[in-house]
Amino acid sequence: MPTDTPTYDCIVVGAGLAGLVAARNLHRAGASVLVLEARDRIGGRMYGRALPSGGWVDWGGQWVGPTQERFCALLSEYGVERFPSPSQGRKVLIFGDQRYEFEGFFQGFFEGLPPGVPEGDWSDAIDAWARFDALAARLEPEHPRSNDLTRKLDAVTFAQWIGENTRTAFGNWYFSYMARAVGTGCAEPEQVSLLHVLWGHRVASQAEYPEAELLRGGAGQLPAKIAAAFAERVRTGEPVLRARQDGAGVTLETPRGRYAARFAIVAMPPHLAGRIAYDPPLPPLRSQLTQRMPMGTCAKLLVAYDRPFWRDRGLVGTGIGNSGWVELCADSSELAGDVGVIAAFVYGHRYHAWRQLNESDRRAAILADLARYFGDEALSPIAYDEADWTSDPWTGGGYTAFMPPGVWTSFGEALAAPVGSIHWAGTEVAERWPGFFEGAVRTGEAAAERVAALL
Amino acid sequence: MPTDTPTYDCIVVGAGLAGLVAARNLHRAGASVLVLEARDRIGGRMYGRALPSGGWVDWGGQWVGPTQERFCALLSEYGVERFPSPSQGRKVLIFGDQRYEFEGFFQGFFEGLPPGVPEGDWSDAIDAWARFDALAARLEPEHPRSNDLTRKLDAVTFAQWIGENTRTAFGNWYFSYMARAVGTGCAEPEQVSLLHVLWGHRVASQAEYPEAELLRGGAGQLPAKIAAAFAERVRTGEPVLRARQDGAGVTLETPRGRYAARFAIVAMPPHLAGRIAYDPPLPPLRSQLTQRMPMGTCAKLLVAYDRPFWRDRGLVGTGIGNSGWVELCADSSELAGDVGVIAAFVYGHRYHAWRQLNESDRRAAILADLARYFGDEALSPIAYDEADWTSDPWTGGGYTAFMPPGVWTSFGEALAAPVGSIHWAGTEVAERWPGFFEGAVRTGEAAAERVAALL
Repeated sequence: MPTDTPTYDCIVVGAGLAGLVAARNLHRAGASVLVLEARDRIGGRMYGRALPSGGWVDWGGQWVGPTQERFCALLSEYGVERFPSPSQGRKVLIFGDQRYEFEGFFQGFFEGLPPGVPEGDWSDAIDAWARFDALAARLEPEHPRSNDLTRKLDAVTFAQWIGENTRTAFGNWYFSYMARAVGTGCAEPEQVSLLHVLWGHRVASQAEYPEAELLRGGAGQLPAKIAAAFAERVRTGEPVLRARQDGAGVTLETPRGRYAARFAIVAMPPHLAGRIAYDPPLPPLRSQLTQRMPMGTCAKLLVAYDRPFWRDRGLVGTGIGNSGWVELCADSSELAGDVGVIAAFVYGHRYHAWRQLNESDRRAAILADLARYFGDEALSPIAYDEADWTSDPWTGGGYTAFMPPGVWTSFGEALAAPVGSIHWAGTEVAERWPGFFEGAVRTGEAAAERVAALL
Repeated sequence: MPTDTPTYDCIVVGAGLAGLVAARNLHRAGASVLVLEARDRIGGRMYGRALPSGGWVDWGGQWVGPTQERFCALLSEYGVERFPSPSQGRKVLIFGDQRYEFEGFFQGFFEGLPPGVPEGDWSDAIDAWARFDALAARLEPEHPRSNDLTRKLDAVTFAQWIGENTRTAFGNWYFSYMARAVGTGCAEPEQVSLLHVLWGHRVASQAEYPEAELLRGGAGQLPAKIAAAFAERVRTGEPVLRARQDGAGVTLETPRGRYAARFAIVAMPPHLAGRIAYDPPLPPLRSQLTQRMPMGTCAKLLVAYDRPFWRDRGLVGTGIGNSGWVELCADSSELAGDVGVIAAFVYGHRYHAWRQLNESDRRAAILADLARYFGDEALSPIAYDEADWTSDPWTGGGYTAFMPPGVWTSFGEALAAPVGSIHWAGTEVAERWPGFFEGAVRTGEAAAERVAALL
């Protein structure tokens, strides 16, 4: 396949949030852009639907926090309102046979009043957290570079650290849960580098409240708003299979056509970016990175009820626990609305076991867990959506990608470095808020800026 | 893309050794087969060339051992003679500033007389080896299944085990070198699961002498011999980009055409098998496995001399050491021949640093290392071939794939399990001698047998 005379200034591969932001900014700067998207829809992990009964569900990301500045700016620009996530009431912790209601929250970082677990269990977790937090503070707030400290932290699984730093089953679960549930990975602790988990806390900390607010109408409305200005330049159903570049530009081939541009921005998770057949081949450091940066493992369930019944019981709608399937769930509806929506998550080993069940049993398993958290009304939803990103070949997992041991310090420098006329974007590439909408916006903006400067 | 009416009984994707053996056996059984190969040649990592001056070089695998029964049978069938690898003379160990000549050999497993490293260093390594060997013996000689023991071993990097089981720099290097140089991975110890390294020793042990013999004329002659009987059914330059299956069969699409069969055997490393766009998508366990099983990191250098000059010095031509670049090299020529060939290997971190050099500096670096092992005559070769499998997009690394922590026990069951009408082969899938020719032959035979039984 020869390269062709460029028709566009830049082709963006992937119409998720990062790709749309990149395309928008280039289009605004007067560049001619084309967006190629594998799915038959745009938005990637920014996707949702309105419920017939009112309200909405977001299959992908849904929250925003106060320090996520670029995403907040985007919301303002498109007139999408933010409102506080429900916070009034008690949260629920399930651990083993016990169920606790409490007025705090934890996901590594803890605040408020602790749940009533035995004091020794709680102090085990919290003491280890102080060590974890202090260790993370020693990292620079950027992509980890290879040095004596990072190499040491990168040679160890998070499971190893947990084993050495906790002595109770609760303490162990507290950190295992964090590895699965926070925004930088959804990895089982034995799969992920200690360095990666520390880095996630350093650059995307729960202490900055990334789930402080929800979006009125849902995040899923945004892709169409962003793409509106250049909608005729977006081609869906066109997975890029091959990419050829030379000094003149880049030619991309999909099952339906061939497109040429001076530059390309590939805005997909690294393992998907690695599936394109590049000519010339990617440098070995980049090629091997894309073999080593898997997506985490999770599904999100959106369960809607005719009313947010948990509030009657003084519950805020947040459940955390080592329950059979659902380790985290949260109220995802408006305080004033009629419809109640719980977003529930199944991670890691639990996900793969759950996935073996048939559809009816999967649903029953989730509802039974929600009933344990919030009461039997949970068994009678008005809508139940499975957002199974791990079964979806155009994402391949969720929430985002993570680094197994030894990857950051050997291959990390290839994560963001352009290769010829090809630039990389996507929340997985972000130095700040990776795995969040904010990271996607930042990398989309940065890629557009770099390409615009070269045009 | 709809599926088509099957034209073939089975399409084999990948014309490496496993794919060729599978196609051959099906063809012999009377099935109609087609082989689709991405490269413009067949053979995969079984590839070499004759030297104009006489002799040959193998860019990929080259050795065979007495317990590699299926590969030995294949060699006999095609009349390829085996002869003993050169073994007369002293081997060379370089460690730091020191150079030792010794009459033993080690790569984990040790035999013969030890090199003259300080006694404390040597016993550190050998004592740890006894523990490693005993731990590996506790594994079943098959793909690791998830149980209490394997989950524990799979939660730890090999680097962690090395740190806890050695106390000297030599002991540490002894095992790090083993992780990089033995047949199951070429992984840096911080990248690989302890379980994976133990398993490699369990099912593909150096104690069975897998490098005991060489092949007269080289391994590279075999692919054409195997394919001869069905050469018209082999299509090169046809990477499979998409695969669709339903109850009736499988349709495969390449840039040049579309081919339909009742079954497919995909005989490629898992990360490459994962790059095909499957419709319906692969089950999530399989899809996530292919994101998590990277190829190791190495290049092989074939350096030919007008004569095997090292023999004049009583050297066997084997060098092992923590030299700048070449950690392992070995005489790969006949005892009676005129031409001397050294096969040299650069692994892991050393590979990626070496790859940054320009071509001339890369060559100079390798020759300088060989001179340190064998003397200054090494600086004047008559041929120098870089077999850089890690830069080659249709292999992506070498010698083979490995498992980072947490992969075997969570995703291992998806490695060999067929998905609908698609079966998997390739040395990475083997339960015995993974990473060796033997593993490729076994999986090719097994896949053909399974498919033949279904026809």
